[in-house]
Amino acid sequence: MKKTAVIMGSDSDLSVMAETIKTLRELGLPFEVHVMSAHRTPECVSRFAAEARRNGFGVIIAAAGKAAHLAGAVAAHTTLPVVGVPIGSQGLGGLDSLLSTAQMPPGVPVATVAIDGARNAAILAAQILAVGDEALEEALSARKIEMEKSVMKKDEKLQREVKNL
Amino acid sequence: MKKTAVIMGSDSDLSVMAETIKTLRELGLPFEVHVMSAHRTPECVSRFAAEARRNGFGVIIAAAGKAAHLAGAVAAHTTLPVVGVPIGSQGLGGLDSLLSTAQMPPGVPVATVAIDGARNAAILAAQILAVGDEALEEALSARKIEMEKSVMKKDEKLQREVKNL
Amino acid sequence: MKKTAVIMGSDSDLSVMAETIKTLRELGLPFEVHVMSAHRTPECVSRFAAEARRNGFGVIIAAAGKAAHLAGAVAAHTTLPVVGVPIGSQGLGGLDSLLSTAQMPPGVPVATVAIDGARNAAILAAQILAVGDEALEEALSARKIEMEKSVMKKDEKLQREVKNL
Amino acid sequence: MKKTAVIMGSDSDLSVMAETIKTLRELGLPFEVHVMSAHRTPECVSRFAAEARRNGFGVIIAAAGKAAHLAGAVAAHTTLPVVGVPIGSQGLGGLDSLLSTAQMPPGVPVATVAIDGARNAAILAAQILAVGDEALEEALSARKIEMEKSVMKKDEKLQREVKNL
Amino acid sequence: MKKTAVIMGSDSDLSVMAETIKTLRELGLPFEVHVMSAHRTPECVSRFAAEARRNGFGVIIAAAGKAAHLAGAVAAHTTLPVVGVPIGSQGLGGLDSLLSTAQMPPGVPVATVAIDGARNAAILAAQILAVGDEALEEALSARKIEMEKSVMKKDEKLQREVKNL
Amino acid sequence: MKKTAVIMGSDSDLSVMAETIKTLRELGLPFEVHVMSAHRTPECVSRFAAEARRNGFGVIIAAAGKAAHLAGAVAAHTTLPVVGVPIGSQGLGGLDSLLSTAQMPPGVPVATVAIDGARNAAILAAQILAVGDEALEEALSARKIEMEKSVMKKDEKLQREVKNL
Amino acid sequence: MKKTAVIMGSDSDLSVMAETIKTLRELGLPFEVHVMSAHRTPECVSRFAAEARRNGFGVIIAAAGKAAHLAGAVAAHTTLPVVGVPIGSQGLGGLDSLLSTAQMPPGVPVATVAIDGARNAAILAAQILAVGDEALEEALSARKIEMEKSVMKKDEKLQREVKNL
Amino acid sequence: MKKTAVIMGSDSDLSVMAETIKTLRELGLPFEVHVMSAHRTPECVSRFAAEARRNGFGVIIAAAGKAAHLAGAVAAHTTLPVVGVPIGSQGLGGLDSLLSTAQMPPGVPVATVAIDGARNAAILAAQILAVGDEALEEALSARKIEMEKSVMKKDEKLQREVKNL
Repeated sequence: MKKTAVIMGSDSDLSVMAETIKTLRELGLPFEVHVMSAHRTPECVSRFAAEARRNGFGVIIAAAGKAAHLAGAVAAHTTLPVVGVPIGSQGLGGLDSLLSTAQMPPGVPVATVAIDGARNAAILAAQILAVGDEALEEALSARKIEMEKSVMKKDEKLQREVKNL
Repeated sequence: MKKTAVIMGSDSDLSVMAETIKTLRELGLPFEVHVMSAHRTPECVSRFAAEARRNGFGVIIAAAGKAAHLAGAVAAHTTLPVVGVPIGSQGLGGLDSLLSTAQMPPGVPVATVAIDGARNAAILAAQILAVGDEALEEALSARKIEMEKSVMKKDEKLQREVKNL
Repeated sequence: MKKTAVIMGSDSDLSVMAETIKTLRELGLPFEVHVMSAHRTPECVSRFAAEARRNGFGVIIAAAGKAAHLAGAVAAHTTLPVVGVPIGSQGLGGLDSLLSTAQMPPGVPVATVAIDGARNAAILAAQILAVGDEALEEALSARKIEMEKSVMKKDEKLQREVKNL
Repeated sequence: MKKTAVIMGSDSDLSVMAETIKTLRELGLPFEVHVMSAHRTPECVSRFAAEARRNGFGVIIAAAGKAAHLAGAVAAHTTLPVVGVPIGSQGLGGLDSLLSTAQMPPGVPVATVAIDGARNAAILAAQILAVGDEALEEALSARKIEMEKSVMKKDEKLQREVKNL
Repeated sequence: MKKTAVIMGSDSDLSVMAETIKTLRELGLPFEVHVMSAHRTPECVSRFAAEARRNGFGVIIAAAGKAAHLAGAVAAHTTLPVVGVPIGSQGLGGLDSLLSTAQMPPGVPVATVAIDGARNAAILAAQILAVGDEALEEALSARKIEMEKSVMKKDEKLQREVKNL
Repeated sequence: MKKTAVIMGSDSDLSVMAETIKTLRELGLPFEVHVMSAHRTPECVSRFAAEARRNGFGVIIAAAGKAAHLAGAVAAHTTLPVVGVPIGSQGLGGLDSLLSTAQMPPGVPVATVAIDGARNAAILAAQILAVGDEALEEALSARKIEMEKSVMKKDEKLQREVKNL
Repeated sequence: MKKTAVIMGSDSDLSVMAETIKTLRELGLPFEVHVMSAHRTPECVSRFAAEARRNGFGVIIAAAGKAAHLAGAVAAHTTLPVVGVPIGSQGLGGLDSLLSTAQMPPGVPVATVAIDGARNAAILAAQILAVGDEALEEALSARKIEMEKSVMKKDEKLQREVKNL
Repeated sequence: MKKTAVIMGSDSDLSVMAETIKTLRELGLPFEVHVMSAHRTPECVSRFAAEARRNGFGVIIAAAGKAAHLAGAVAAHTTLPVVGVPIGSQGLGGLDSLLSTAQMPPGVPVATVAIDGARNAAILAAQILAVGDEALEEALSARKIEMEKSVMKKDEKLQREVKNL
């Protein structure tokens, strides 16, 4: 099974990205987590990205905020799919992170999820790995059905709450 | 080889999405192209998405503009990776399309590329399929080297142009 | 009397949407409330929307946040008027929700109210039902006069407060 | 049959709003069209709105750009449903029009459609009138099916175009 | 001496607008304060604005938030200068209020100050009244010099604070 | 009669500001027009603003684009009312100009009109001068009535055009 | 060694700008700190800027919020490099400050750093002074290596934290 | 004399950046121009940046559009001052480029100029080099005076044009 890399530009991003890790664990996917920065440890990022495929990674999830270059810097050095998580910044609410992550030039795509979309980054990584992995696909399908049921239960619960409003 | 689906909300999106088709062809990837709309042919979209894996698709690229729900509507019905292309709208320049495509709720990711990022949608699809396909990965790597060389040639050409400025 | 449906993408939206329910109750309008999600229970949404008219509904109020597709997904499956309530998101303040709800393509309108405009959604629903219902129209007119008087009373109260500033 | 009012803040808005008129005609709905301005003919707007129900109107469509107050000014004087069409402004692409139209305070809703959403304004008006009018509802349903077929035809046509790309 | 009117769309705006009242008092300018709403008491607004000059007002300050139509509605009914104060809204930070207040059509200006710019609204009103009033102008000039001195004192104080950083 | 100053940051702004000059002429108001720049001729701006009252000016209209500091720089040196015209910039549509002009700190107001609101700048200047000038007020009232009639004529004309749509 | 000037429009900006001062101290750079305002003490700003080079300054760092003109006003009066720090405003998150600082007209540049980018302002000033100062350059390089190591340590620490998630 | 590097992410940026080159030539500053891309030729960028000081460069000007990472990628590898020019993108008008360039994390500043601010990039580079170069400072001062005179001449010319309006 190919590993998923979860890298983040700052250790403060962990409060958001814990959800990615939790979801990868729930799905039983092997992963590595690293702090590395496109601006503060650029060589580290280049090396990690360039060797990622050789080192057994199948997807790289990169989270960063503001002028969020991490996902793009990784994508520049690999042909692996790179999932970008724009971290919500304080002032501009993550609009800067979203545009810096998504607006990549032709030739170097980043698969951008929502601002602070940590859980979806893990699911997207799993979906990518599941293209050629039936068991994982079944796990994802099961999860999707669980999610559906959970919404339906919330609907039932809502019926009671609404009466007491 | 798994197929890539390229669907768009309106036939007018073809002017942008032709680049996706051209890139998939260059990469020798099998694909199907369809016009279908989350709002005008919703059953068509649900059915297509729900059956896509069974029908041999590995990735779905969905392009739409303004309240761009197509990619999200597809993602709701499949566990295949869905690549969203926000089509640039006239007034707001595609900010509406980008937010409608990227800001998905936990559980249902869309891999969003840049506004009008048609070529990158194809490359991202190829990168996803290449996770388990060495030959395709080599084609992508070769393309990346070509791209690098092409930038270097532009640099050479620039040296001459600058002299004549 | 036709019923009003109040559906929301997540049970966490109830804190905002309680105002809708309260206002419908004040107006004596029959209604049903449901949690259902365009992305997590799409079949549920399609079915509900497609059968809504047959099931005695006259208006559907749909509330959702971020890539807020719920109102649009409902509108795709019915000719009933659909009122969309963009729920204010944390980072972008609901701009994403507003654009995802309002920027619908030709053919499938959503009657969008303000971000977190829960009370107005109920009033708009009532106004729609009142087009052919004189008694309801009179209730709305009375309410409008009440509202006017309440502002005037606040003006009187302000006169005292300003003196103590 | 109740009439639909189509009012616009400036005669230059007609280039956009012609689509509203055309759609109302196609649906066989009686309507009146007027230029009137919340800022330049405010008394005219107040009077028109206050008397609209009495004068046989069922819905009022109001289109305006920039600090687009027309729909709100109308809504202040009537309990009829008011559909607001934000006209796309040059510099800000209609963001100003959209916010001025949609962000109404509690008590006075405006049913806002997309920027330049002229066709949808007419369809929404028809949907409102169709709540109590089965024949009109059938016309709308038929139109919806037509629209669906038209998208499917575009899909067929696309198959040929894609071959020639 | 002509009076200044301070009107606000909601009594909750007083927390911001208290600064206007305080500044008018400091400048010794006569004023009246009212809650009135372009959408909830439109007749009240029209009447107040239409009679303002006759009633001895020289300037009208109008504060409102979100789809902030109050200043524009006043300006529609008077040739007195109208100062608009966009009240900062929660989600969008007052961008909606600012655009709704400032983006007025040709013929009906609103003199817009900053979001929550309550003190400046009072000073601008005073500047307008001071065009033909030398004593008031001198008071404003004195205030300007005071302000200058106050900044200089803060500079001195800063020198000490910086040492202790 | 006090003069109105019309200053602009660049001679290219004249294409927009010609409307200001035309309107001042129509109102018979004396004025002076100057190119001066907060960034390129700052001393010129300071001197002009500091001496404006003494030199017979009653209002200063200042137009500038992008980081539009001209109106603020003038306001820093005078107690005359300063009307700011944000000139629409190419990329950001004038949002930068609007924010740079309107978001002034407490103590130094700028009376900001709409982006490219050249005509309104002249009318606002006239309204300010008319506070103490009955004849000018009458001219403005007459103009307002003219404007009202012109909209009504457009309404009549529209009736014919709509028939031919 | 040339001095760095740190000026801010309001003493309340010190909470952000303390980081600039701290960084300059760490780098052993001589500096002066002042409160001065483009709008409240404009002569003070002009004089300071015009004499800065003569007074031994090499770089000027100017911090201001909202209609942030301070950096531009300084740049208008000197040929020294001016570093602008947009202070994050409450409502708009500093977008107004950023645009007012960065969007300067041709001829008068401001070297704009991130919203609240106080530390980077100091580093940029040091980089500018280091162009001709080898010792300072070495200090900056050493700091860069420190920063790199610090990120790597955080990566190690993360490995432990992730296990306990 | 230290050289200035002018690098751009795409040869299509030359249409904007020609102004930088022209201004550097006017100032008699030695420079090199290169096309290199943070995403397509990342090694090239790293190497160039890392060796720039050693190769005689004093400032690096980096221009890029959309997810504009070039300036940040350069700044990650050097302690030289890096001037970032956000290139105006089509849809979002360069807001994406501006945020991606300016919103850098603590430790790695980019001196950002206006969107498409090519001339100012050259002047800022010259101002940086002039900190320790009196002759260059004199050239910049002379240019500043020229600019001032040119605005004054435009003012004279305007006087004639206004008469003919």
